[in-house]
Amino acid sequence: MTRLTNPLHSWFLGPKGENEQLLKELLDSALQAHLSWRRGYHPEDPSPIPAEASSTPAAASQRAELKGQFAALLRQLRGSVPFFSGRYNGHMLSEQTIAAQAAYFAAMLYNPNNVSGEVAPVTTQLEGEVAEQLARMIGYDPWRCWGHLTSGGTIANFEALWIARNVHYYPVGASLAARSLGVDVPVSMPGGSLAMLRDLDLWQLLNIRPECSLDLWEKLWAAAPKQLVESALSRHSLASLGYQDYSRQLTREFGDPLAAGVVLAAGTSHYSWAKIVAALGLGSNQLVLVPVDRECRMDPDSLWREIESLTNKRIPIMACVSTCGTTEEGAVDDLQRILEVRERAQRELGVTFHIHSDACYGGYAASLTRAPGGSRHAPGAIREMLGTAQWPTDQWVRSLSALERADSVSIDPHKLGYVPYPAGAFLLKDKRGRELVSTDPPYLAVATSRENGEQPVIGRFIFEGSKPGASAAATWLSHKTIPLNSAGHGKIIASTLRGARELYALLGSSDFAPFRVIRLAEPDLNIVCFLLHHPSLTTLSDINALNETIYRELSPDAQMSAPYMITRTRLTSPGYDGVIEPLLSLLGGDIGRSPETAAEGLTILRATVMNPFSSQGGPDYLLGLTDSVRQVAMSFLRDPATMVASRPAARS
Amino acid sequence: MTRLTNPLHSWFLGPKGENEQLLKELLDSALQAHLSWRRGYHPEDPSPIPAEASSTPAAASQRAELKGQFAALLRQLRGSVPFFSGRYNGHMLSEQTIAAQAAYFAAMLYNPNNVSGEVAPVTTQLEGEVAEQLARMIGYDPWRCWGHLTSGGTIANFEALWIARNVHYYPVGASLAARSLGVDVPVSMPGGSLAMLRDLDLWQLLNIRPECSLDLWEKLWAAAPKQLVESALSRHSLASLGYQDYSRQLTREFGDPLAAGVVLAAGTSHYSWAKIVAALGLGSNQLVLVPVDRECRMDPDSLWREIESLTNKRIPIMACVSTCGTTEEGAVDDLQRILEVRERAQRELGVTFHIHSDACYGGYAASLTRAPGGSRHAPGAIREMLGTAQWPTDQWVRSLSALERADSVSIDPHKLGYVPYPAGAFLLKDKRGRELVSTDPPYLAVATSRENGEQPVIGRFIFEGSKPGASAAATWLSHKTIPLNSAGHGKIIASTLRGARELYALLGSSDFAPFRVIRLAEPDLNIVCFLLHHPSLTTLSDINALNETIYRELSPDAQMSAPYMITRTRLTSPGYDGVIEPLLSLLGGDIGRSPETAAEGLTILRATVMNPFSSQGGPDYLLGLTDSVRQVAMSFLRDPATMVASRPAARS
Repeated sequence: MTRLTNPLHSWFLGPKGENEQLLKELLDSALQAHLSWRRGYHPEDPSPIPAEASSTPAAASQRAELKGQFAALLRQLRGSVPFFSGRYNGHMLSEQTIAAQAAYFAAMLYNPNNVSGEVAPVTTQLEGEVAEQLARMIGYDPWRCWGHLTSGGTIANFEALWIARNVHYYPVGASLAARSLGVDVPVSMPGGSLAMLRDLDLWQLLNIRPECSLDLWEKLWAAAPKQLVESALSRHSLASLGYQDYSRQLTREFGDPLAAGVVLAAGTSHYSWAKIVAALGLGSNQLVLVPVDRECRMDPDSLWREIESLTNKRIPIMACVSTCGTTEEGAVDDLQRILEVRERAQRELGVTFHIHSDACYGGYAASLTRAPGGSRHAPGAIREMLGTAQWPTDQWVRSLSALERADSVSIDPHKLGYVPYPAGAFLLKDKRGRELVSTDPPYLAVATSRENGEQPVIGRFIFEGSKPGASAAATWLSHKTIPLNSAGHGKIIASTLRGARELYALLGSSDFAPFRVIRLAEPDLNIVCFLLHHPSLTTLSDINALNETIYRELSPDAQMSAPYMITRTRLTSPGYDGVIEPLLSLLGGDIGRSPETAAEGLTILRATVMNPFSSQGGPDYLLGLTDSVRQVAMSFLRDPATMVASRPAARS
Repeated sequence: MTRLTNPLHSWFLGPKGENEQLLKELLDSALQAHLSWRRGYHPEDPSPIPAEASSTPAAASQRAELKGQFAALLRQLRGSVPFFSGRYNGHMLSEQTIAAQAAYFAAMLYNPNNVSGEVAPVTTQLEGEVAEQLARMIGYDPWRCWGHLTSGGTIANFEALWIARNVHYYPVGASLAARSLGVDVPVSMPGGSLAMLRDLDLWQLLNIRPECSLDLWEKLWAAAPKQLVESALSRHSLASLGYQDYSRQLTREFGDPLAAGVVLAAGTSHYSWAKIVAALGLGSNQLVLVPVDRECRMDPDSLWREIESLTNKRIPIMACVSTCGTTEEGAVDDLQRILEVRERAQRELGVTFHIHSDACYGGYAASLTRAPGGSRHAPGAIREMLGTAQWPTDQWVRSLSALERADSVSIDPHKLGYVPYPAGAFLLKDKRGRELVSTDPPYLAVATSRENGEQPVIGRFIFEGSKPGASAAATWLSHKTIPLNSAGHGKIIASTLRGARELYALLGSSDFAPFRVIRLAEPDLNIVCFLLHHPSLTTLSDINALNETIYRELSPDAQMSAPYMITRTRLTSPGYDGVIEPLLSLLGGDIGRSPETAAEGLTILRATVMNPFSSQGGPDYLLGLTDSVRQVAMSFLRDPATMVASRPAARS
């Protein structure tokens, strides 16, 4: 690939609007197609708008009013953050693909509502195809799995835990239902043996592998007439009883007051998990933080110890959330090893749970592991393709490839998929799980499966109702023209990974004297975290003040006058202990050994290198960024109080 | 207003694209403004895309590929449902305002993420203004309330109940926290008296008025040092303990095993409520259906009896969901009387709860009650303005005006607000309630209030995370140019209400012989429900088959060949008993007296008259629709088996 045949050059509008013509043509054709569609529908129908109406003074003033307000909006929008620029390496925002922009606009004109095929015959179909595209990328069997778009990662994560909870508790309700029906069915135990449902005690019922719980679901429906099963299940299921009566039922029926089920997640997991467990009624106390290693990944050994300890206390585990691309650091958990820990727990402890991969940020990196034909690249082949010696590591490739074995995966097209908001996605390995959360809307056609060629009622199985079909069209066209493999989307990902590694190297090699740059571990994806230190700063608060100042000076203001933009995060104890400890020892002295550390935490600067052109030559934004960091730090040192200096204007 | 000065004529693209020129100009100006914004940001930065890159054969083939796929998408989109046409009166979809379409597109180019002002300085501001616009329309005090946009009504309703739950249970945790802190504070009781927190028993703690619960929240923070309160609350709150441990705590601390709290809703409430109570862990059994009257409204007398009965059983009530515009029938609950029932319950029974108005569909009708200056129109003045004698009734106006006294309201701009998906909205009368569900994201700036001029971190208080700022811009501009009063949005609403009443009258006056048309009550908004009957049909199944056939023949197929499009719903027992009973007696004979009624339900045809030009003259779509209904029914009568007749093509 020479510099002139780089496909990235035509995938985005470009920081100078280089591909204006292409986007314009697409937008024009979309509007024309839409108008001709409107006009071609019963052309004999007269217009409700009189032809003369538009030439009245009233109409002219109406239009002038709208144009005036619109112009005011456009002026306001100039105060937006320039995510398109290589100078912006702050939050997880960047360009959108032209394909996604144009398709979103095109479909929006038709206003399809992807709650159901009845109101979105085209775009619900496209949504199904998007789920299939994503499923093939991560390695799910498209016929066994199920997926759909959500408004974002929070809803996708919510659905994962909602389903996991209902699958986890299903055997308990099933056992009581089976008793009341006078039937019994065999169940696979975590260790591999078979047992009869009604022989299982409460602990065993709460430790059935998710797919075996779903097998059980099918078996129970086959064991008795449908209506009887339905009514027996509804008398005993968590979904109908709710937590309070369900807990009482356990005490009554099993003589065993169930300890509340917990969710395991690393301290690096997204803050939405705290919202989710609280909202679902699990309680934030039930979110058990697994220690992280210095790479900000969930530590598999700690995970094992946590499982052992919970098992000893007879506390059931509902789910484990592993992250592929942590929000703060872009860290990619070693999912392969996490899956191995679960296998061991099944084998040795008879304990199991749902594993969800929160790949909202990092999931698209799996495109690098896919060859255009669909097969999986070997790690060496990826390195060869990228012309790199050391990365991605074998372990990295293994972690991305292991997504295919997670029970569910969330992945956001509106992050590293470069499509406009809103576009999250949820993928469930075993589609039967969706039945445990389904609700029938009365006014929509009865749901039938897509396999039967009928229009799907997505709304039956998802948490949201009405949702934009335009989002499905945008994601679909983007995937269609920039395929989810190493020759397509992988090229964008590779460019940003390379950019991040360049920045990481630059931070390590540049002369920041009199400051010292302390970097977190090498980036797993494209987020680079670091902090500055100076010998004169002797307390954690002082060091934080320096880095907070750098953040503040290098973040968007009303005039966008910061020369470069990054952001920051704060590592707190105990979630980040595995990361903080080595950093503090690098800071030296007694810094951070005080009790204040836990409360205050450590401010870390954070650069999300998401711009698709991050390593495509052109101006060296990364060099500019490191220079700016040092300059701001110097000003801080000279006089922390007068830091609010006048900045040069960003605009000509 | 003469026919030529009707502002509706320039608010929408129009079924023939009559306002093509206006939309085009706006779109062009948006793209130009965006390009000039990109180019004006650090114009000295070179482009990462070489100038020669676009003229290479590789780039040309890239562009050709994208254009080809895009053209294929545009062809597919021609299979969309023609919501823009007066021939479509099916689901809740219609036109979008030009203002909303153009603003969505304009803002989407900047890709703002309204999770936080840091990544969306302009559009988070607009979102705040949208909340204010909606608050003023319904009558909330913009400085006491809080509101924001959601992906749709389900999330807005979810947030309402999530907050209601946390506010409802707050006094229980507060009481235990106060004991552990050794403090006490006064609390207002539902009857009006004051009591000390620690003197209250469990039943009393669960019957504190929402605003008094929030007063208590403030008082407790003032009664002891912040950190101590925080830790005491977290040891006792539902959000941290989760349901299981919380229930146990109640038994332990109060010697009172709490009956699970229930949510009251009418059988006509949206199906998302079933999802929501199940997901929140309340359990679908705790959704108590309040009977409806023949107008499909929650019956206030039945509500009172239900409250009395629950109180006698010592079952706490968490919330009551009243609907303003039921999804199936557009019925508007008599919210004024529902509020009176709560007042009586507080006075006579010492019982209270959160009242949420699910105004997702009907909320925008409140625009009719507002004069341009912001004052409230008297019912007579509205009728005079519309030139109507009988409607809207005084009671209707009272119901809409009573929204200002509901504790929370959900309202969807993407329904009767005529803006593109996704745009739901949630409004909370007392903004302090959001603090009981807040979560701090580590990577976003610390939240500060908008009043202080700081950028708000919306993500702290809402369930979703990333969300499109474009949606805020679209809703904002639409409200700005078509104000939420009788001279603006009210005109659109009035046109559809009028259209629905015309259809209703037409169904009553037309000769359907040999069929009889049986109509539900007069529409409260713009949804008309009816069914056809024929003397030869003697079972419920036969009557349902007739109406299902009409629905099937008058609904979208791949060729959009149905001459008109409506939809249907199914009224089931017991939720709809109040509606079904009078209908069955109109059907006569023994129809529906069989036990099958409850299981099968009654199919009802449903026309959502949402087209803004519904009563604006032009072709009489309503007449065409009633004719078509009769024709399909006649064919059914001739031969139910050969109903899949060939239909004329819709397109020229």
